[in-house]
Amino acid sequence: MATSGKVIRCRAAVAWAAGKPLSVEEVEVAPPKAQEVRVKIVASGICRTDDHVLGGYFPNIEFPVIPGHEGAGIVESVGEGVTSVKPGDKVIPLCLPQCGECCFCLNPDSNYCIKSHFSESQNLMPDKTSRFTCKGKQIHHFLWTSTFAEYTVMPEYAVAKIDAAAPLDKVCLLGCGFPTGYGAAINTAKVKPGSTCAVFGLGGVGLSVVMGCKAAGASRIIAIDINKDKFAKAKELGATNCVNPKDFTKPIHEVLMEMTGLGVDYSFEAIGHKDTLTAALASCKVSTGVCVMVGELASGSVVSFDPMLLLCGRTWRGSVLGGWKTRDSIPKLVSSYLEKKLNPDLLITHTLPIAEVNKGFELLRAGKSIRSVLLF
Amino acid sequence: MATSGKVIRCRAAVAWAAGKPLSVEEVEVAPPKAQEVRVKIVASGICRTDDHVLGGYFPNIEFPVIPGHEGAGIVESVGEGVTSVKPGDKVIPLCLPQCGECCFCLNPDSNYCIKSHFSESQNLMPDKTSRFTCKGKQIHHFLWTSTFAEYTVMPEYAVAKIDAAAPLDKVCLLGCGFPTGYGAAINTAKVKPGSTCAVFGLGGVGLSVVMGCKAAGASRIIAIDINKDKFAKAKELGATNCVNPKDFTKPIHEVLMEMTGLGVDYSFEAIGHKDTLTAALASCKVSTGVCVMVGELASGSVVSFDPMLLLCGRTWRGSVLGGWKTRDSIPKLVSSYLEKKLNPDLLITHTLPIAEVNKGFELLRAGKSIRSVLLF
Repeated sequence: MATSGKVIRCRAAVAWAAGKPLSVEEVEVAPPKAQEVRVKIVASGICRTDDHVLGGYFPNIEFPVIPGHEGAGIVESVGEGVTSVKPGDKVIPLCLPQCGECCFCLNPDSNYCIKSHFSESQNLMPDKTSRFTCKGKQIHHFLWTSTFAEYTVMPEYAVAKIDAAAPLDKVCLLGCGFPTGYGAAINTAKVKPGSTCAVFGLGGVGLSVVMGCKAAGASRIIAIDINKDKFAKAKELGATNCVNPKDFTKPIHEVLMEMTGLGVDYSFEAIGHKDTLTAALASCKVSTGVCVMVGELASGSVVSFDPMLLLCGRTWRGSVLGGWKTRDSIPKLVSSYLEKKLNPDLLITHTLPIAEVNKGFELLRAGKSIRSVLLF
Repeated sequence: MATSGKVIRCRAAVAWAAGKPLSVEEVEVAPPKAQEVRVKIVASGICRTDDHVLGGYFPNIEFPVIPGHEGAGIVESVGEGVTSVKPGDKVIPLCLPQCGECCFCLNPDSNYCIKSHFSESQNLMPDKTSRFTCKGKQIHHFLWTSTFAEYTVMPEYAVAKIDAAAPLDKVCLLGCGFPTGYGAAINTAKVKPGSTCAVFGLGGVGLSVVMGCKAAGASRIIAIDINKDKFAKAKELGATNCVNPKDFTKPIHEVLMEMTGLGVDYSFEAIGHKDTLTAALASCKVSTGVCVMVGELASGSVVSFDPMLLLCGRTWRGSVLGGWKTRDSIPKLVSSYLEKKLNPDLLITHTLPIAEVNKGFELLRAGKSIRSVLLF
């Protein structure tokens, strides 16, 4: 099954250093080694996490690096021993791998994998070398996905084969943003029918939380953002109320308490800001309230809170990629998409050629896009 | 059923002001009004929370006040409309009431009650008057229990009738400390058989957590305290390892990581200190770890932590009185005690007359007692 191992020259958006715009370069992509897969990326969403990489806020990243982790593509070649995919298969790269062997992968209650970046850096392949070079320099991988490269190499257990009918320019969102938000409601919070939810932040992830809350049968979904331009989409996707904290002088958690009497049943922080993280905790009901942390704070952040909020019985949980065991679940989410049970397409506001990758980030930072999808 | 309403003169330990020792005084206890019960307290444990009251660290307390919330006694008289208890019944006062009517009491997943101090101060009876006076001054109630008084008045829904065979000088511990710790393991964390637990703080509550972890079938229970004198009792009650953070230069969460590989499945903070609260969070496993906050921090405390600890999927939960619906559960715990299924007696290290209440607090502060029980 292994194909001839030639180096491929192709385009990629390289981050040479923190704080600099991406530079679209010609890069060399080495063939996959044993247990690795080389994928031709067709489309890649731009996620806030990539912007954290560019800004140098993501933990344990090494520059230069090729970001991107929300992609979809076609297997170009496979290394020795790869059995689960073959050239021509449509796949989604998994920014959270599923090795299938670690104690977390073997635990039905966990979707974590010991091979993930948070346990050991994924800046290089498992053999501690890179498959990317540019202008004679080694370029680092990012989460083993590096979907801002036209061709990228991943361990087999970081690739999920999906239905051949899937439109790659749409299902790329199932690589990160959509399942992260949707699963935070469905899997992590386990939102119950008839409940009241509050979603802080209406980017791609926050809006996916709104969709998850709606799918779970929440009767009231309060969507919160300081950018009122996000409200129309939030309502389209299921929000029953939209609140702009800027319209109030009192703290947002007090506003939510007044709206709901005792607080919400579930709150979700999908921004990645310490103040909204504690506001989300304070907004949920004493005793039974569940606050799910979805947004990623800059590396080194410190969050301070009143411990009485927790002692009174609230639950504060983090959610990693929406609690989905990625390799098992993402192909199923793609099938649900093809059956029109999910519609992440509604999150895609812009489609851009890879050459305009920096424009995509500008739209994100200006709050003018939900998801921009880059095409090669 | 209502009995004649005479004022009773009796002894009580009064806290006249924050930071002062208790003063054993003669007080007047008014008869119970409608829906109230007057109880002759026979025994009362001294809990760290009472010391927080004396120090002025407990939220929303008003002085002068009669502390005490871990008592057991006998109904002396009842007000109009009281049907669930009658004079002569043995009862445990409920520092967390169960009104049976609020949204929390009606929710099987919650043991909170909207009538509790954390929603509205219990410094006065529900009609906003006190039943206590001393030297012509109104004395405040504490959590409606005030078990440091020989006679105390409570709303009917803050009293649980228990088995007439129960020894009151022992089962008083079932009013707070024992169910708080035991239930934190059984109900809040839902410790699974074969799991690894860490318990920070080996006072009465922490040792009850140890007993709960053991009852739940934990295979490894790591007991942590800076006072090594607590270790023998912890081992007697089920701890498999005892760790003194003072024996290490590295942070305790690193010690626990090394002992366990990936961290513990469940950690419990039963001290009420911000540093151990975040250490407990950091000590549990990424993704699946559950950290339960049991210890009460001083009012106004602020806890700071690295949000990445949470984002990676850990769960941080507060536990109020061990998750027990008090009026339903405490009588059942008493029955289990009488069937010898529980043995909180092992926590009682001292028994003192009420006149020596300040000695009881001195023993507590010096780390020389686990539970002192005061007798009238």
